[in-house]
Amino acid sequence: MALTKGDATHRDILRKALSLASEVGLGGLTLSALAERVGLSKSGLFAHVSSKENLEVLVLEEAISRFTDLVVAPALKEPRGEPRFRALISGWLSWGKAEFMPGGCVFFAAIADLDDRPGPARDRLVSSQRDWVEALATAAKVAIAEGHFRADLDPHQLAHETFALGYGHYVLLRLIGDPKTEARTNAAFERLLESARTPS
Amino acid sequence: MALTKGDATHRDILRKALSLASEVGLGGLTLSALAERVGLSKSGLFAHVSSKENLEVLVLEEAISRFTDLVVAPALKEPRGEPRFRALISGWLSWGKAEFMPGGCVFFAAIADLDDRPGPARDRLVSSQRDWVEALATAAKVAIAEGHFRADLDPHQLAHETFALGYGHYVLLRLIGDPKTEARTNAAFERLLESARTPS
Repeated sequence: MALTKGDATHRDILRKALSLASEVGLGGLTLSALAERVGLSKSGLFAHVSSKENLEVLVLEEAISRFTDLVVAPALKEPRGEPRFRALISGWLSWGKAEFMPGGCVFFAAIADLDDRPGPARDRLVSSQRDWVEALATAAKVAIAEGHFRADLDPHQLAHETFALGYGHYVLLRLIGDPKTEARTNAAFERLLESARTPS
Repeated sequence: MALTKGDATHRDILRKALSLASEVGLGGLTLSALAERVGLSKSGLFAHVSSKENLEVLVLEEAISRFTDLVVAPALKEPRGEPRFRALISGWLSWGKAEFMPGGCVFFAAIADLDDRPGPARDRLVSSQRDWVEALATAAKVAIAEGHFRADLDPHQLAHETFALGYGHYVLLRLIGDPKTEARTNAAFERLLESARTPS
């Protein structure tokens, strides 16, 4: 990469690429569309981004970095146990509404584009989503250790169901748009947490 | 449409278009790629499919028709109540593995492409997914009426959670590919059904 971190143009390109990818998907994110949005010539953009594939990876890296800052890091500052697990869920639900992704979650947009297109972008997406499932499972293990969740709970099962409900929520919200979607997702998560909790 | 049902070329075009869309998404489904796969000239294909937009709608119609035949209709032949609800879930999970969609569920592939692209294809996708959520809610209502599910169960809540778990399952399966994904999804559905069931 020709870029040094902290370079203002670099940050502007990544910000606008993330915003554009959220609207058109990773497949639709072209160097020419990005050049236009950034206000650079195509050759000017080429000095910063070497290929469409490189651009896709850069956008995913930018999204992963923001997701870590906005969802994972704040949750780690919450008390160990159920509060931290809840913070991951609520942070994730807010993430899909972030103003820097006007077309919605870029990971969601990337999944259908990349799920059967092998390469560095798919690898990066897969590793990020594995990390996310692992973060959920780890938070569940901590909640078991703290005595908040049942000792016989399978933390990977809870992580699976949380991940599935979250992505499913996103499909329901974006596609069907029933005004009760958010309330129903919250109720689903409450039921899930209730089933995980140590009986009082 | 220039086509009469039962036309062999018509059926061959739809079959190959569905297969291709499952691999490349609805966004990537072009008339030229389809012409090549069908073995027609582009102008030959034009006599059957008037535009890319028309093609997208035709592919969705084909998928909806097959989903109805393979998932909904067989479930309606199952006994009213929990057996029918279960048949919808198991039919749905099998659907994503159908050999006529080598790249996986075409609805899944279409969601990220169409979720913020208004037009007839998006309208058709949205109405199909609304129908599916409604079919799940109706099956839940029948199971309540049969006494299999609790009288105070909210059938729309159960439909929401079923839909979310199913789509989330698909993301986990396609993207992360953990060998335990299927077992965990089955466990999640069992827990969901257990919570819906009338206590014995």
